[in-house]
Amino acid sequence: MIIRKAEKKDIPHIYNLVRELAVYEKEPEAVTATVDDYHRDFSDGIFKVIVAETEEGIVGMMLYFTAYSTWKGKMMYLDDFVVNEKYRRKGVGQKLYDEFLGICKEEGVRLAKWQVLDWNKPAIHFYEKNQTEIEGGWFNVKHYFNQ
Amino acid sequence: MIIRKAEKKDIPHIYNLVRELAVYEKEPEAVTATVDDYHRDFSDGIFKVIVAETEEGIVGMMLYFTAYSTWKGKMMYLDDFVVNEKYRRKGVGQKLYDEFLGICKEEGVRLAKWQVLDWNKPAIHFYEKNQTEIEGGWFNVKHYFNQ
Repeated sequence: MIIRKAEKKDIPHIYNLVRELAVYEKEPEAVTATVDDYHRDFSDGIFKVIVAETEEGIVGMMLYFTAYSTWKGKMMYLDDFVVNEKYRRKGVGQKLYDEFLGICKEEGVRLAKWQVLDWNKPAIHFYEKNQTEIEGGWFNVKHYFNQ
Repeated sequence: MIIRKAEKKDIPHIYNLVRELAVYEKEPEAVTATVDDYHRDFSDGIFKVIVAETEEGIVGMMLYFTAYSTWKGKMMYLDDFVVNEKYRRKGVGQKLYDEFLGICKEEGVRLAKWQVLDWNKPAIHFYEKNQTEIEGGWFNVKHYFNQ
């Protein structure tokens, strides 16, 4: 297995992993972005992706972008982090995660941030093992646009 | 009062408003980013700000950046939104918020997202009035870097 930065040809596989995670998170209908959106937005540099690849193809990915924390400064935001179900509990997630931390250090960010569903015990366990801070007490607020 | 895009000279006032909000949010020690960090990161285009200005100076601001939602596509992320205490309940927040929504439409984003503390009733009331979706059930996960 290799971990590498994603290229344009990987986008359909990345998109399928996003959909797989949305099913796991019990919101399969929530993915309204299309694979064409992903192609355009990836070309525009709005997000970056690292992928885990085996002989069978792309089996995991992390999608991230540069963001800002008014409290800490330059930040990396992670949305999403997915490993294909068949490949879980084999260290794929840890390899991706370690590569992601390396990129954060290279980029000089002070903080990496993401979210996890409060019932997603395996993910929470993974993040606890990895010296993160897990924080409740905040609501998400969303305003949708028809465009 | 006018609402306008921030310029370099506004950065110290923006920084002071961030610190004012951190005190209100009961975490005055959490702001470790410096005003020099803000100057550099603003020049690098990592974040943008709109400000509310009166004869007394900058009395409110919204700090935001382009982000990505794997489910919806191009997104605007808001962090922070502050009105100086003396100027609350005078419509300053609504004017800033309406300007922000206009920018989101211009930029063609599908979604604007931010967070609110679960005990911050006045802010939650404001967001409810403004047709947002307020969502619980998620933890924040943070990894800090010493850099």
